[in-house]
Amino acid sequence: MPSYTAPTRDMQFVLDEVLDIRNSDVPGYSELEPDFTSAILEEAGKLARDVLAPLNQVGDQEGCHMENGVVRTPKGFREAFEAIKEGGWNGLDLPEEFGGQNLPYIIGTAVGEIFVSANMAFNMYQGLTHGAISTILAHGTEDQKKTFVPKMISLDWTGTMNLTEPHCGTDLGLLRTKAEPQPDGSYKITGQKIFISSGEHDMAENIVHLVLAKAPGGGPGTKGISLFIVPKFLVNPDGSLGERNAVSVGKIEEKMGIHGNSTCVMNYDGATGYLLGELHKGMRAMFTMMNEARIGVGLQGYAVAEAAYQNAVAYAKDRLQGRAVTGASNPEGPADPLIVHPDVRRALMDQKSFVEGARAFTFWGATLIDRAHRNNDATAMGLISLMTPVIKGFLTDKGFESTVLAQQIYGGHGYIEEWGMSQFVRDARITMIYEGANGIQALDLVGRKLAQDGGKHVMAFFEMVKSFIKENEGEERLRADFLDPLKAASKDLQSAAMFFMQNGMKNPNEALAGSYDFMHLFGHVCLGLMWAQSARAALKALDAGAEDKRFYEAKLATGRYYMARQLPMTATHLARIQSGAAPVMALEPDAF
Amino acid sequence: MPSYTAPTRDMQFVLDEVLDIRNSDVPGYSELEPDFTSAILEEAGKLARDVLAPLNQVGDQEGCHMENGVVRTPKGFREAFEAIKEGGWNGLDLPEEFGGQNLPYIIGTAVGEIFVSANMAFNMYQGLTHGAISTILAHGTEDQKKTFVPKMISLDWTGTMNLTEPHCGTDLGLLRTKAEPQPDGSYKITGQKIFISSGEHDMAENIVHLVLAKAPGGGPGTKGISLFIVPKFLVNPDGSLGERNAVSVGKIEEKMGIHGNSTCVMNYDGATGYLLGELHKGMRAMFTMMNEARIGVGLQGYAVAEAAYQNAVAYAKDRLQGRAVTGASNPEGPADPLIVHPDVRRALMDQKSFVEGARAFTFWGATLIDRAHRNNDATAMGLISLMTPVIKGFLTDKGFESTVLAQQIYGGHGYIEEWGMSQFVRDARITMIYEGANGIQALDLVGRKLAQDGGKHVMAFFEMVKSFIKENEGEERLRADFLDPLKAASKDLQSAAMFFMQNGMKNPNEALAGSYDFMHLFGHVCLGLMWAQSARAALKALDAGAEDKRFYEAKLATGRYYMARQLPMTATHLARIQSGAAPVMALEPDAF
Repeated sequence: MPSYTAPTRDMQFVLDEVLDIRNSDVPGYSELEPDFTSAILEEAGKLARDVLAPLNQVGDQEGCHMENGVVRTPKGFREAFEAIKEGGWNGLDLPEEFGGQNLPYIIGTAVGEIFVSANMAFNMYQGLTHGAISTILAHGTEDQKKTFVPKMISLDWTGTMNLTEPHCGTDLGLLRTKAEPQPDGSYKITGQKIFISSGEHDMAENIVHLVLAKAPGGGPGTKGISLFIVPKFLVNPDGSLGERNAVSVGKIEEKMGIHGNSTCVMNYDGATGYLLGELHKGMRAMFTMMNEARIGVGLQGYAVAEAAYQNAVAYAKDRLQGRAVTGASNPEGPADPLIVHPDVRRALMDQKSFVEGARAFTFWGATLIDRAHRNNDATAMGLISLMTPVIKGFLTDKGFESTVLAQQIYGGHGYIEEWGMSQFVRDARITMIYEGANGIQALDLVGRKLAQDGGKHVMAFFEMVKSFIKENEGEERLRADFLDPLKAASKDLQSAAMFFMQNGMKNPNEALAGSYDFMHLFGHVCLGLMWAQSARAALKALDAGAEDKRFYEAKLATGRYYMARQLPMTATHLARIQSGAAPVMALEPDAF
Repeated sequence: MPSYTAPTRDMQFVLDEVLDIRNSDVPGYSELEPDFTSAILEEAGKLARDVLAPLNQVGDQEGCHMENGVVRTPKGFREAFEAIKEGGWNGLDLPEEFGGQNLPYIIGTAVGEIFVSANMAFNMYQGLTHGAISTILAHGTEDQKKTFVPKMISLDWTGTMNLTEPHCGTDLGLLRTKAEPQPDGSYKITGQKIFISSGEHDMAENIVHLVLAKAPGGGPGTKGISLFIVPKFLVNPDGSLGERNAVSVGKIEEKMGIHGNSTCVMNYDGATGYLLGELHKGMRAMFTMMNEARIGVGLQGYAVAEAAYQNAVAYAKDRLQGRAVTGASNPEGPADPLIVHPDVRRALMDQKSFVEGARAFTFWGATLIDRAHRNNDATAMGLISLMTPVIKGFLTDKGFESTVLAQQIYGGHGYIEEWGMSQFVRDARITMIYEGANGIQALDLVGRKLAQDGGKHVMAFFEMVKSFIKENEGEERLRADFLDPLKAASKDLQSAAMFFMQNGMKNPNEALAGSYDFMHLFGHVCLGLMWAQSARAALKALDAGAEDKRFYEAKLATGRYYMARQLPMTATHLARIQSGAAPVMALEPDAF
């Protein structure tokens, strides 16, 4: 069975040294002393290692089952959920007023990584609840907040998001679920929703569904859409549970992975719903949840890769097979461990350099969110809005690839379910699809975010890279290994953006045909920047005579690997982008 | 449920126009008139579409089960196997003397692609039998050939290959299965083998296991290994089945995919075995099977991708979602089909250009095998020996990626098992692992094949590329789109080989750290060459006023896509290779 240990040392390095959060002006950050954050991370790590990780394979193999309309989660999930509740983990970064602890979002992010690595399918019950809470907090009435949020923070109730219908996913303008206004101000919701994660289960007293539906008078397409709160059990004025609402599970989907999470078809048959936010402005409200969820999915991408990587390392050290070509490393044994072989090293370094870079990138994104919310910083808001599709799309594509590399190290044993490596691959696969398939992320990035506010957010990013390079030019130890490659990669990104500007106006397909490559190009530059920053922090620690020298030296070596072996991809992405729309669009549909 | 139609038009194009097999001097090729080959391919296509493809998802969902030591294949498999037997499909390219039809290997390859696309797991029962037959034909005594081969060609008996043991896969020198010589010249085989595809099932009267084991006196490591024939039922002198041999199934493995094939743990408890080939030369004999199997696995890689691609195209044309940014293509409908979107096109073109290029590459490889066997052509033998790891490693990595792209087009529906796209991904995944994990292919290529016979095979390949470019330089329509990119890619490959020569002598890790990238670089150059040759053939047909102009124009457009969008990867692979061993090997094992 795979095991998992929270990478708290690396998390602390990112928090304290790369991002230096203590010395930031974000309200609440000055309290994030290493002793304090490390106590939280260690505690989360313990729960992850001892309770959540051991249930990961159980959840995969047993799955969720429907018995007389009730969904049963896998053995042990209820108890684990109780442990999460008791620890108050769900409210970590939510308002004290409703029972949360009001810590910054970045702490929730770090803890989230730990829980996802240990058991992604399980963590979704909590994760979606968190997103639903944020949406109610952002758009709900005072009454709605008081009624729903405390119970959801405590996880007595959980939340879901209901967008997709059988005939529409991305194109929500097509949705058919109807909301009919009732004399008492509520609505009757009727329609079918599919792919509803955590749609029904046996771990909470109530489930609060946030449902997109069309109320009369809203006009065609997405303009007519509103968002509704549809609880499984209606809530009495005193907060106690009332009658069962007319919402039921059609079936549980058979999926490729995340079997521990109940993905449901939900049928709404005139269910009572309450408008959340403004009428016919449902898309805007839903995007509160969506943007949070997208960053959360990017996090899932690398968090599952971290878990897979840890197990691949263990196997590569343990499994004896072949001899090092440069001389036996284990001459007493029948063979050397896999890790002596250069190609196994390559696969491990690919994973390690991705996961650590992705962690720094995501944590940095979390600081932007904190800055946007706590400092009302429009620049940070613009930057995270630009970065959201990159975090989601790039980290999930690469995260999936990384799990495939981890599985590969096991050879035939990786293909056998017994070892658990297949599960990481199958679980990670969904992250490229849900909360907007990655092609949609690329479209969002190139079609919307790039030119947003006159393109100033991407200019801010370029400026950031430029000034980092300038500030550190004097550092010989950074120049050739980090700054030069970063400069080249950033130049590729600028050339790509320029190509879009010059050609996309005349023909938008010229930009859209390169959108996916642009998302990846952007992701590489972001990770390159993170590695350059990490290298600077490592050098600083070494210069200051840090005790665990080996950690910092490994950090530098891993960064050098990323810059030398991964960053060159930007040139290929640029070449593809610059080949334009013609090769992509040449064929008529019936020539396929 | 996914469907499948054999791409016979494209196969004929490769056979008749790209490879021009009729005009080759390989014995038997002159008879391969288009009418003749097309009759075979159409017939195979019918069987694939009507019988095999409908059982693909059944096999995945039902899997194989053990009942009282007997393995039951999924519903319908027995009947389908009867149809394969009745059609004589297994003997297509095997000697007439033993009941085969003696057609060239290339015909077996084309038919193999069709069957694998339709149902990979099912086709393995037959495919492994074919490999076992080749091994017996190459190394067996006359008596062994007469006893086993006719029954195996008719598929009354099937075959397996038994290499892996729990503690050793790649490193066969570690194997523990023992062969004790008996007074009658037979051996008693004792040991456990794992991951044995088609190890036990209910579709044949007998199963002929080819088993690697150590007989006394052979010395340590792989030198001590011999190959044995161990039939499930012993065979009486008159050819009838005798007593049950002491070989049994330990269990059926739970795998990520190819559930329709029974992957077994096999226990040999003093089972009677017969030496196949020379004593202590078992590795050499096994490599007959292995090399054939490796090309077969490369074929699986792109064949599954072809099936996934066909379904992705159908879905992209059918599913209405969003509007073309350049103006509605389906203004009467609620939305446009997915195929209007540039990023969906990109994903489809990636798949199409890969699969068609891979087909040409594999078919070309098959002509090398025919030439090697039928003309005793040492150059062809050297070239296919060099190409085998590229066909296996590159086509399976890219084939897997291609199935992931196909699945992605389905959005959430791709993740649900109901639609069958997940199965293509899960099935394709094994091709990167078995018959030598792809890292081993890269090692074989760089560590062995590249320098084989003084490097003359790779020189022959470079010469081939060079003379193709030279011959066609006058063709304006090829130059910019095909010849220039091919020249650049081939130059990258030469630079990489040069880097290995200059640095690998001093430190073999300098070569091995780049081996995986080299395998991919090589694969891209091969597909680039295939596309350039295909383009030339398409232009020739168009110039001759071919009727189905649209086929040839699509061929040219697809080739241009590959050259513009895929071939630039060679530069990145070269950059990685030239960064050398240092970034890869910098960390001590305990720093991971």
